[in-house]
Amino acid sequence: MSRASVSTPLLPEKVRALFPALAETNEVYLDSAATTQKPLPVVETIHRYHSSRTANAGRGTYPWATELTARISEVRARTAAFLGAENPDEVVFTGGATAALNAVALSWGLAELADGDEILYNPRDHASAVHPWHHLRGLLARFGRRIELIPYRTTELGEADTADILAELTPRTRLIVTSHLHHVFGAVTTLEELRGRIDPSVLLCFDCSQSGGHLPVDVTELGADFAVFAAHKMLGAPGTGILYCRRRIHDRLLPFLPGGNSGVRLTESGLACAAMPELLEGGTPNIPGILALGSALDVLESFGMAAVAAHNRELTVRLVDGLRAVPGVEFLPGPAHAPCAVGYGIVSFRIAGITSADVGFVLGRLGFLVRTGLHCTPAADPGADDLDSVRVSTHVYNTLDEIDRFTACVTTIAEEVT
Amino acid sequence: MSRASVSTPLLPEKVRALFPALAETNEVYLDSAATTQKPLPVVETIHRYHSSRTANAGRGTYPWATELTARISEVRARTAAFLGAENPDEVVFTGGATAALNAVALSWGLAELADGDEILYNPRDHASAVHPWHHLRGLLARFGRRIELIPYRTTELGEADTADILAELTPRTRLIVTSHLHHVFGAVTTLEELRGRIDPSVLLCFDCSQSGGHLPVDVTELGADFAVFAAHKMLGAPGTGILYCRRRIHDRLLPFLPGGNSGVRLTESGLACAAMPELLEGGTPNIPGILALGSALDVLESFGMAAVAAHNRELTVRLVDGLRAVPGVEFLPGPAHAPCAVGYGIVSFRIAGITSADVGFVLGRLGFLVRTGLHCTPAADPGADDLDSVRVSTHVYNTLDEIDRFTACVTTIAEEVT
Repeated sequence: MSRASVSTPLLPEKVRALFPALAETNEVYLDSAATTQKPLPVVETIHRYHSSRTANAGRGTYPWATELTARISEVRARTAAFLGAENPDEVVFTGGATAALNAVALSWGLAELADGDEILYNPRDHASAVHPWHHLRGLLARFGRRIELIPYRTTELGEADTADILAELTPRTRLIVTSHLHHVFGAVTTLEELRGRIDPSVLLCFDCSQSGGHLPVDVTELGADFAVFAAHKMLGAPGTGILYCRRRIHDRLLPFLPGGNSGVRLTESGLACAAMPELLEGGTPNIPGILALGSALDVLESFGMAAVAAHNRELTVRLVDGLRAVPGVEFLPGPAHAPCAVGYGIVSFRIAGITSADVGFVLGRLGFLVRTGLHCTPAADPGADDLDSVRVSTHVYNTLDEIDRFTACVTTIAEEVT
Repeated sequence: MSRASVSTPLLPEKVRALFPALAETNEVYLDSAATTQKPLPVVETIHRYHSSRTANAGRGTYPWATELTARISEVRARTAAFLGAENPDEVVFTGGATAALNAVALSWGLAELADGDEILYNPRDHASAVHPWHHLRGLLARFGRRIELIPYRTTELGEADTADILAELTPRTRLIVTSHLHHVFGAVTTLEELRGRIDPSVLLCFDCSQSGGHLPVDVTELGADFAVFAAHKMLGAPGTGILYCRRRIHDRLLPFLPGGNSGVRLTESGLACAAMPELLEGGTPNIPGILALGSALDVLESFGMAAVAAHNRELTVRLVDGLRAVPGVEFLPGPAHAPCAVGYGIVSFRIAGITSADVGFVLGRLGFLVRTGLHCTPAADPGADDLDSVRVSTHVYNTLDEIDRFTACVTTIAEEVT
């Protein structure tokens, strides 16, 4: 996290003024892990695309079109820099983080995996970081190829259990998948402990859907071969995902959803693959979504990612401290169980004696918008039921006052029960 | 085309006032086959999503989220009605038309095709309606399964040559793919001539990327099993596609890009498939794009699709008549070669003695925005070079005056050459 060094505290009023949806409501938005609110520059970029010089990109040769092509290239280069990627051609735009994770399965997995190969994954991660591997295994099995999906454990702190990963590693391990910031537990996994202890040919895939735009993320420091981001969870718009794909695997990939302008050509002998990132980008891209991502990065960089992370940490610590005093509150694994004050903007908890759905319903009626339930964690996870919880997730626009009011509200609910 | 019966002529000034990007320019936009301009209701719907009560859909239980979930269901039902689909669960939202065509290949093709099965396709169709089958064939070949891609011919009128399709049919034909409205030739193919002459188990896939929002399209009348649409070519936004998928194939499909909230569950024995359309919709959808599609349908229905088609026909006929008089103009296959006055808003031509790129460059300098080149047609098509052309494509906002000015400009260019 190289860019975490300088951090100027955010000014709540100045920050909130950037988010039009928050100006018109008294409700408290605490579901940024589902999607973040959109700052004015993002809203305006999208508006401008649709209302002025609207064109397709990468096709026409007139200025309306060529300017869009150039702007998409700029956003790609900026995104690469923002993520710590070494080259813009390592940044692929997809329809979302789910599509990006499926691209790893279909473009790399279908191409490379042989009988007996293994993928290590966390069954308690988000379904989008679990289902693609099961789907891949099913596809390969149809053609008589058997791969193994090896689950690893989560620690009490909500992190990937790297000791368990090391214990499960075999010479057949080809890929290790983890969420960088867990979508329910709110804990960070960097797999740093594996550095130098695993064969460098084993690929690492980080689901950064929750960390991108929340913490400084550096894919090169992470040693990621693949890393996936959701623009709509980093102040951008739905319908745009980012797949970071390290150069060393570029020549090992199959096309992903090929079509017009993808890096694919028909030749006499079949489909020939051309350059990245086009190889994984067929069809008209989500032009306004990509341009909006550029504006989202502007906003995030104007705050500074270190300041964003510090703000979320402060809110998380305050929330955990507050909830700790509430009778009947039980924290799910995560920073609440850590010996020191850490936090990344996600806290999940239950209140003994009342279902999470009921807690969420009352909170909603009182103006606190949180997520309840299983949070898109695959239902067959043997321990899935104990993920049923209330999840609070924050971003730059949330304030300590909101957290305090939320805690007071939870206290009232808990006292009603006991 | 059941809804083509009533047609009130469009009032050019009233129509153009709906499109903000056209109000601020003197340039003449003639590239609607690449993407259409966006009417105010579309622009505003997207703006409202990002600036008011922004949330994710299908996840949270608070009103900001549940209202979005309900609105997406409404748009799905409206889209089904607009396309002539019998059931809303036959409408799948994807990241675009290219993704939708690839979904046919990956969710149906990978699941069903056996050694020796055949797909009939048009090598002169858009790359997005060609590459997915080649990619599918390549994937299957990796696993020792060989399918055949059988190309069929195009007539001089630019339509799929149904006599050739009938001649190429074998008991192993599983799928026939065609564009409904060809993206370069501007001709309509309905495959009506095949009705009753082919085994009903042979599936039909129509690429309606150019016809959707331009002509009345009725997928049930077409006898389509799959039909694909691009929202951004029907007055909506980039990043949203529609895959119509007829009920009779629902239980034969594999998941497409599975993730959170897709119709897929993990069970003890693997991945279990649940209901359509969720089966093909993993991850956060492009919420503003889907809502914008609803607004685009409002606008199209306020015009009436018969009136839209009549307007494009009038523009096309005027353009063809005008260009016919220009020395050196050669029309590509299409309605220009028809014995009667037809047209669907797309005309492609060349001027003898000058490259299409040069014509396009001069036109662009003079304020006429057209597409030149090969128009995303796969480059290995043996006849691809003769697709190099200037393509003019229109929509509701274009006027006869614009067409006349364009023809005058082409005349000047052609006279310079000769």
